[in-house]
Amino acid sequence: MAKLTRYLPILDWGRSYSRSALSNDLIAAVIVTIMLIPQSLAYALLAGLPPEAGIYASIVPILLYAVFGTSRALAVGPVAIVSLMTAAAVGQVAEQGTMGYAAAALTLALLSGAMLLAMGVLRLGFLANFLSHPVIAGFITASGILIATSQVRHILGVEAHGHTLPEILTSLAAHLGQIHLPTAAIGLAALAFLFWARSRLKPTLLRLGLAPGLAGIATKAGPVAAVAGTTALVWALDLGTGGVAIVGDVPQSLPPLTIPDLSPDILQGLLVPALLISVIGFVESISVAQTLAAKNRQRIDPDQELIGLGAANIGAAFSGGYPVTGGFARSVVNFDAGAETPAAGAFTAIGLAIAAVALTPLVYFLPKATLAATIIVAVLGLVDLSILKRTWGYSRADFAAVLATILLTLGAGVEAGVSAGVILSLVLHIYKTARPHVAVLGLVHGTQHFRNVLRHKVETQPGLLMLRIDESLYFANARFLEEMILDHLARDPELRDVVLLCSAVNEIDFSALESLEALNHRLTEQGVGFHLSEVKGPVLDRLGKTHFLDALNGRVFLAHYDAWTALRGTPGTDRAA
Amino acid sequence: MAKLTRYLPILDWGRSYSRSALSNDLIAAVIVTIMLIPQSLAYALLAGLPPEAGIYASIVPILLYAVFGTSRALAVGPVAIVSLMTAAAVGQVAEQGTMGYAAAALTLALLSGAMLLAMGVLRLGFLANFLSHPVIAGFITASGILIATSQVRHILGVEAHGHTLPEILTSLAAHLGQIHLPTAAIGLAALAFLFWARSRLKPTLLRLGLAPGLAGIATKAGPVAAVAGTTALVWALDLGTGGVAIVGDVPQSLPPLTIPDLSPDILQGLLVPALLISVIGFVESISVAQTLAAKNRQRIDPDQELIGLGAANIGAAFSGGYPVTGGFARSVVNFDAGAETPAAGAFTAIGLAIAAVALTPLVYFLPKATLAATIIVAVLGLVDLSILKRTWGYSRADFAAVLATILLTLGAGVEAGVSAGVILSLVLHIYKTARPHVAVLGLVHGTQHFRNVLRHKVETQPGLLMLRIDESLYFANARFLEEMILDHLARDPELRDVVLLCSAVNEIDFSALESLEALNHRLTEQGVGFHLSEVKGPVLDRLGKTHFLDALNGRVFLAHYDAWTALRGTPGTDRAA
Repeated sequence: MAKLTRYLPILDWGRSYSRSALSNDLIAAVIVTIMLIPQSLAYALLAGLPPEAGIYASIVPILLYAVFGTSRALAVGPVAIVSLMTAAAVGQVAEQGTMGYAAAALTLALLSGAMLLAMGVLRLGFLANFLSHPVIAGFITASGILIATSQVRHILGVEAHGHTLPEILTSLAAHLGQIHLPTAAIGLAALAFLFWARSRLKPTLLRLGLAPGLAGIATKAGPVAAVAGTTALVWALDLGTGGVAIVGDVPQSLPPLTIPDLSPDILQGLLVPALLISVIGFVESISVAQTLAAKNRQRIDPDQELIGLGAANIGAAFSGGYPVTGGFARSVVNFDAGAETPAAGAFTAIGLAIAAVALTPLVYFLPKATLAATIIVAVLGLVDLSILKRTWGYSRADFAAVLATILLTLGAGVEAGVSAGVILSLVLHIYKTARPHVAVLGLVHGTQHFRNVLRHKVETQPGLLMLRIDESLYFANARFLEEMILDHLARDPELRDVVLLCSAVNEIDFSALESLEALNHRLTEQGVGFHLSEVKGPVLDRLGKTHFLDALNGRVFLAHYDAWTALRGTPGTDRAA
Repeated sequence: MAKLTRYLPILDWGRSYSRSALSNDLIAAVIVTIMLIPQSLAYALLAGLPPEAGIYASIVPILLYAVFGTSRALAVGPVAIVSLMTAAAVGQVAEQGTMGYAAAALTLALLSGAMLLAMGVLRLGFLANFLSHPVIAGFITASGILIATSQVRHILGVEAHGHTLPEILTSLAAHLGQIHLPTAAIGLAALAFLFWARSRLKPTLLRLGLAPGLAGIATKAGPVAAVAGTTALVWALDLGTGGVAIVGDVPQSLPPLTIPDLSPDILQGLLVPALLISVIGFVESISVAQTLAAKNRQRIDPDQELIGLGAANIGAAFSGGYPVTGGFARSVVNFDAGAETPAAGAFTAIGLAIAAVALTPLVYFLPKATLAATIIVAVLGLVDLSILKRTWGYSRADFAAVLATILLTLGAGVEAGVSAGVILSLVLHIYKTARPHVAVLGLVHGTQHFRNVLRHKVETQPGLLMLRIDESLYFANARFLEEMILDHLARDPELRDVVLLCSAVNEIDFSALESLEALNHRLTEQGVGFHLSEVKGPVLDRLGKTHFLDALNGRVFLAHYDAWTALRGTPGTDRAA
């Protein structure tokens, strides 16, 4: 039963579901539903899909997440960055606007869902740790810039394409002569209104006497007002026939049962993008979920979150959607509106289902320029170039990772950017730990303490080299240790004993063990004694399973001071023999 | 001048070159030359190239290494594993036996040389650290098996192909009916002789009264005897016209000036293989060079070795060769024969040049089966499956890395194998450090020492959580720290102060800094004090560059005991305010 509750968190919160939780969840659901309608349409546009795909992607996934997810406030559905990544990935295997394109988006959701589910069952949530914070920050900022520029064409009513910043800008520049003035007027007006609403609407409403909570929620509804206003305008002036791009016919239907395209070519082409989308989606979702859970001293389980997101994406694949994840904006609205349990998500799904069946005729005249404006305002909030300045001041390695991620995302696309960021983070980490801090030690006079000879006035013995290594020994620094000690050996012909103080060594992996064996062998050949001191219990246990301690030509000292006294003036391996 | 000597080690040893060093180098060169002739022909066969390519690849590269390399005994030229990797890489972009194939092999050498050179100038020798010892051991063992089975077709005189073990075995099984008996007789006899010579020739020679040193060198010349014997046999019995595959015409020429194929398709197809060959070649070479240098208390400079190997490979690209590296067998012979300086290598090059001009007619009747036999005997010495048993006993993570490397190398080829090994090593390392050891601490009664509450009888204070983290904080474990502390917060509603003992934290990267900031923010929201103790100097310096210490709601204690006394019975953030 406990096990079942782990995989089905709904059994946990569902049992104690109260009337007050129900009413709070219902209110939150109404607010989120209204906000999600234009957002879902807009992100479908960004992903290159028909508008209804955005609505469908918000219905079944949100229900499945309510059953399997652990966050009480997370709202799952289409989000900006995953929509952009979907467009980049699916665009490589199918032509936008074709049936194949929509089917490939379903495949991408299925693959991503299967990967997330597998990672959850195998408890591989730690894989998200490969993305360092600077890489994520750089990626989100660059993606925000890419998304915003990609939407400029809808605002201006021109044709323009591209998956990288240079491509998009070149294409926009080439089509600048063909700006459609009525479209541009609507688009720029919507943009101006949304920017104004974001910063000035709330103070204005407060001045007009609205309650602060209500004013906050009304401000979040800015996009709904923009959508309603511009739709009415296009309808009233019949601008649709005048060439303003509108959403047009959206089928009035519940999410259809859809079958993803499982042909080998498509599967193979989408494998790597699906992995990247899974990881990015998971990282985004878990960050949001953790932030919200911590506010109520609640906890979320990352491995179970993987299962929840996996189920949501598989649901999206079979119900006409595309890859989804937990979105920041919608989750915060859900939380602020007072959602108490995942049931709020289920009610939102019902609200959107009603909208899908009954309200789609209302968006027939909705101009695409307005949707583009809502996207631009939303994603510009993601752009934060201050990460460059902050990392520069703190660590050049982190700065290099951010810069590479931003430049590659802008210049070569989302997949190249995030891959390069991950690889560079790892390379820089290996680089740092590959050269650990090593101190040559001497005895502090009158004590039993040993300190770095470069920093302190200490006593040393000729022929006795004492080293302290401030890092676990593993494959990346095994060679360094070997080289460093052999360097000392080559420089000091008088050397007769080497003692390694291991108090900071938390682990010795097999590569490091082999390096120590090789060192012991070479030092023995040269008649130099090789000793260890203050080896931690678990490390010594593991070494005890091998022949290393038998082969060691010197001794293992419990306290480093014992080594100092034992090796005073005695010649290297002669004593050990 | 010191800088020039760094890049041109020849200026260092060349100045003190003595008459005795000259005579020692000359003797070593004669011995190595004799041994290298059959070996070079054999490895060219393995790489799928005409036999002379193996000789050419031993001449110019060895000269360039003598100028730029730092090892005094390393012999650079074709080696088994790099030859196999060359065949796998070039086979993907060109048909074996065509002009394009040889030109692509030159391109591979050029790319690899350029990469090695760049890595050397940028001092990126640490990149070789990405290969853990178990991965290298597994890769060498699996490559040895692959190479040996790939040569069986030459021994039996049948057609068979494939780059993976299943492919090779299936292909061999399919052609087993077509065994060419005279070829098989020669091949198996050569094989039997070489195996006998390797284990029994030296004792026999010693019993016959030969000096031990001479007997050792004569044993290494076993392949030369097999080559001479079987060549004479084929010539005497005219077996070449009877269908025994022979080396045939080899041009009598110095290495020609050749131009690598620089077409974009070829370059792109060989980029990743060239990187893998560079890294594998560098690791093999540096291991050999270090082993030999340590015997004489000499040192080699890994970054300068990269430059030496880079120059050697670029030389190979323009003189009819293919990728080269420092070989174990040839270097050990060189060392044992008494080579003192890289000049021995230069003399070997002159010897091989003479052989290329004058001696190639002598190998006209040399059966390919004999060359295959020399390869099989050489590479079976590389196969060591005991690495599986040794890693299993020591660490399951290392065992998993070896097993994956071996299975993937055998089943999917050399490139897949080594890539998977590298990735798995990194993933396992991240996995281990992503969940560092964390101890909840209590005070040992009557002392100022703090120990793990689970292992020792210690004193604690209600509402005060003291944690010691045994790992540097970086992106892979930043999230873990955050989750763990938030877990404690969710479980203990009485919590009012958290103290992090940082004595084992050697570094805090930007990701970990952001986690600490987020933790501080969340703990502050909950009215819980957040404190650090015993932060190392360099770590504190770096934190001092940020706003973290100002924002921290608690204090930084020099000694952990100060935290214990200061936080006794005072309520969390109230005191900090």
